[in-house]
Amino acid sequence: MFDEIARESIQKHREWKGKIEMRAKVAIDQIHDLTLVYTPGVGAVSKLIAEHPEEVDQLTWRKNTVAVVSDGSAVLGLGNIGPAAALPVMEGKCAIFKRFANIDAVPIVLGTQDVEKIVTTVIAIAPSFGAIQLEDISAPRCFEIEKRLQETLDIPVMHDDQHGTAIIVLAGLINALKVVGKQINQIRLVMNGAGAAGLAVTRLLIKAGVQDMVIVDRQGAIYTGRDGLNEEKKILAELTNRAHQSGPLTDVARGADVLIGVSAAGAFSSELIRSMAPKSIVFALANPVPEILPDEAREAGAAVIATGRSDFPNQINNALCYPGLFRGMLDQNIKKVTDEIKLRAAQAIASVIKDPTAEHFIPSMFEPGLMETVARSVSG
Amino acid sequence: MFDEIARESIQKHREWKGKIEMRAKVAIDQIHDLTLVYTPGVGAVSKLIAEHPEEVDQLTWRKNTVAVVSDGSAVLGLGNIGPAAALPVMEGKCAIFKRFANIDAVPIVLGTQDVEKIVTTVIAIAPSFGAIQLEDISAPRCFEIEKRLQETLDIPVMHDDQHGTAIIVLAGLINALKVVGKQINQIRLVMNGAGAAGLAVTRLLIKAGVQDMVIVDRQGAIYTGRDGLNEEKKILAELTNRAHQSGPLTDVARGADVLIGVSAAGAFSSELIRSMAPKSIVFALANPVPEILPDEAREAGAAVIATGRSDFPNQINNALCYPGLFRGMLDQNIKKVTDEIKLRAAQAIASVIKDPTAEHFIPSMFEPGLMETVARSVSG
Repeated sequence: MFDEIARESIQKHREWKGKIEMRAKVAIDQIHDLTLVYTPGVGAVSKLIAEHPEEVDQLTWRKNTVAVVSDGSAVLGLGNIGPAAALPVMEGKCAIFKRFANIDAVPIVLGTQDVEKIVTTVIAIAPSFGAIQLEDISAPRCFEIEKRLQETLDIPVMHDDQHGTAIIVLAGLINALKVVGKQINQIRLVMNGAGAAGLAVTRLLIKAGVQDMVIVDRQGAIYTGRDGLNEEKKILAELTNRAHQSGPLTDVARGADVLIGVSAAGAFSSELIRSMAPKSIVFALANPVPEILPDEAREAGAAVIATGRSDFPNQINNALCYPGLFRGMLDQNIKKVTDEIKLRAAQAIASVIKDPTAEHFIPSMFEPGLMETVARSVSG
Repeated sequence: MFDEIARESIQKHREWKGKIEMRAKVAIDQIHDLTLVYTPGVGAVSKLIAEHPEEVDQLTWRKNTVAVVSDGSAVLGLGNIGPAAALPVMEGKCAIFKRFANIDAVPIVLGTQDVEKIVTTVIAIAPSFGAIQLEDISAPRCFEIEKRLQETLDIPVMHDDQHGTAIIVLAGLINALKVVGKQINQIRLVMNGAGAAGLAVTRLLIKAGVQDMVIVDRQGAIYTGRDGLNEEKKILAELTNRAHQSGPLTDVARGADVLIGVSAAGAFSSELIRSMAPKSIVFALANPVPEILPDEAREAGAAVIATGRSDFPNQINNALCYPGLFRGMLDQNIKKVTDEIKLRAAQAIASVIKDPTAEHFIPSMFEPGLMETVARSVSG
C-alpha cells in the first residue's frame, strides 16, 4: 500500500513539475495596464507606502502571505535530507495553505543549517511576508531559531512541528476524553518520545489542565536529577513526573489513562496497552508506521485510538490546524502566537465534531467549517 | 497625466491587494489527493531527491522560479525607500514574469542594506529558486553583491538595473543605427550619467563594437587621471574617452552621433541636440521625466528618439528583456549570464522589428514573438 502511494506520488510529481504556481491577478493586455501595474503608476504606490508604511498591507500581497521555511534537517521521518529534498514537502504545505485557507504561501528552503545564518536570513526576508512558518528543523536548533525570531520580528513565527503538533494532540485529547467520560485534570498521561514536539506538547497539555504526566525516552521515565538530561529534558523533568517515577515504559504506562507515542514503529506492544487503565486512550503518532496498529491496540483493550496516518480514521495531522490558524492571525493582525491562541485553536478543532465517538473524534481536513472555526478562534 | 495614472494605479492597487497570488496546481478534494500531495506520498519524492539531487528540477517548481530580490535602496526614481515601499515594484516584475514568460517569480524584499547580510541571505535562500534577479539595489553595493553571488551560486544571478538596461540600450542602438544608416564602430557616442547602469551599458556597447565613447557626469567628461574618480568611474575612464577629452557635456556632445541620457529631467537642451552630428540619435532615459521631450528633440534635429516612458513611442524598458532572457536561461540550464548571452539577447530584441523606422525601432512588450525570440537567443 505504501509502495503504491509512493509510486503514484512520484509519478504525479513528474507530471506536475511543482504543485504550486504564481499567478498574475491583474490583466496585462495593453500598454495602459503596464502603466498601472508597473512604471510609472507603481511609483506612486511605492511613494505612498514610503510615507505611510502601514499601507503596505492595503496595497500589496504581503498581508496574505506566509513563508514556509525549512533547512531540511528533520524532514518527515527521513531526517537530515537537505533543502532540495525538503522542497516537495514545503510545496505540499503551500498547496494546502492555498486550498484550505486561501493563503499565498511561499516555500523557502535554506542552504544552511547554521542557527546564526538561519536567523539572519529569516529576519532579512521577513519584510516580504505576513507570517513565518518554520518546518522540519531539527531539535535543539529549532528552539533557539524560533525563540530569536519571535523576539525580533513583529509578525507571527511558529515552528509547526512543535506547536502545530501540540495543538492537534490537545484537540484530539479533548474529544477522546469526552468519548470515555474522563476529566483532563484527573487523568494519568504518559508520553513516549521527547523530540522536537515533546516540550511544546507537554507545555500545552499542562496549560490545558493535565496534572499527572510522565515522559519516557529511551532511558525510561524522565525525572529531575536523572543523569545526562539535556536542556530540554531538564525542563520536561521540571514540568512533569511529580511522583519522581523512574523505570522503563512498561512500568510507567501501567494504569495510565492516556498513552501518546511520538517515537517509533512497534514501540507499543499489546501487553503494554493491556496494562493501562480501563477505557484507555492511545495516540500512536509515529509516521509512517505507528507504534501499534489500530486493530491491535483495540484488541488489547484501547477504547479510543488515533494515529498520524491519513488512511486510518482519526488522523492527528498538523494540516488540520495551520491553514485556519494562520488565516486567523493574518486577518486579525496578530503579532505573536500565544498559549491562549493555541488553547483556543485546539478547542476550536475539537468543537467541530459535535458528538465525538471512538470511530470519529478528530475532524478530517474536509470537515465543513473546520478552517473557518479555527480562524475565528484566534481572536478569542 | 502622471497624476491621473498615479491616482488610478493607487486605486487599482487598493482593489487588487496584491498583483500576484499563489495557486495550487493540483486538486485536493479527497483524502487520496492529500496522500499524494502531502504525507505519506511526498516522503517518497523527498527520498528520491535526497538520493538523486538533480531530480529536484523534475519533481518541484524550482526550475521555473526566479526570486526578484531588492533591498529597496534605489527604487525607480524614488531612491532609498526601503523594503515595504519596494514591494509593489517587485510584485509588478513578478506579474510581468508570469504574464510574458510563464515564470513563477517571487518578490523578496530585504530588511537589511548590509552587503554581507544580503549576500548571506541570498545564498541561504538560493536552493529554493532557479535564478536570482537583483533589483533596485544602489551603487556601488550592487556591484559587489552581484559579483559575490555570481561567484558562489550555480544559478543565474543578474542585476537588472545594470544588465537589463545595457541589453535594451544596445538593442535600441542597433536598430537606431539601421534607421540612420551608420555603423556601430564608426559612431561617436556620449553618455550623460554614470550610475548603477553606466558601467554595464558601457561594457556591453564596447563589446558590441562602439569605439569612440565618452561618459559625462556632473563634473564633465570622465577621463583617466581626473581628480576624485571612484572605483567604477576609474574603470569607465579606462574603457572610454581615448582622446582624453575634458569639459562639460555641451563641449563633449558637439558632433556626437549618439547621445544617451541616464541622468535627470531637463539635462538636454535643444541647443545641445542641435550641436550634434547630422542624423543624430537621442536616448533620453531619465524617468519619469526624460532629459528632453521627444517633440523638442525632434524639432532640434534629432533623427531617432527613445525614452524610458511607456506613453511615448520607442520605450527603452528592461521588461522587454528579462522575461524572455530568464525563460531561456531556465530552459537551457544556463548557470551564468555571460557577455555573449547579453549580446545575443540585444540582437534578438532588435531583430523582432523587421524594418526599423524612426517611428518604430524598439518593440513593445506585446510585439508578437518577442519573448520567444529572446529566450531562444540565450543558447546561441
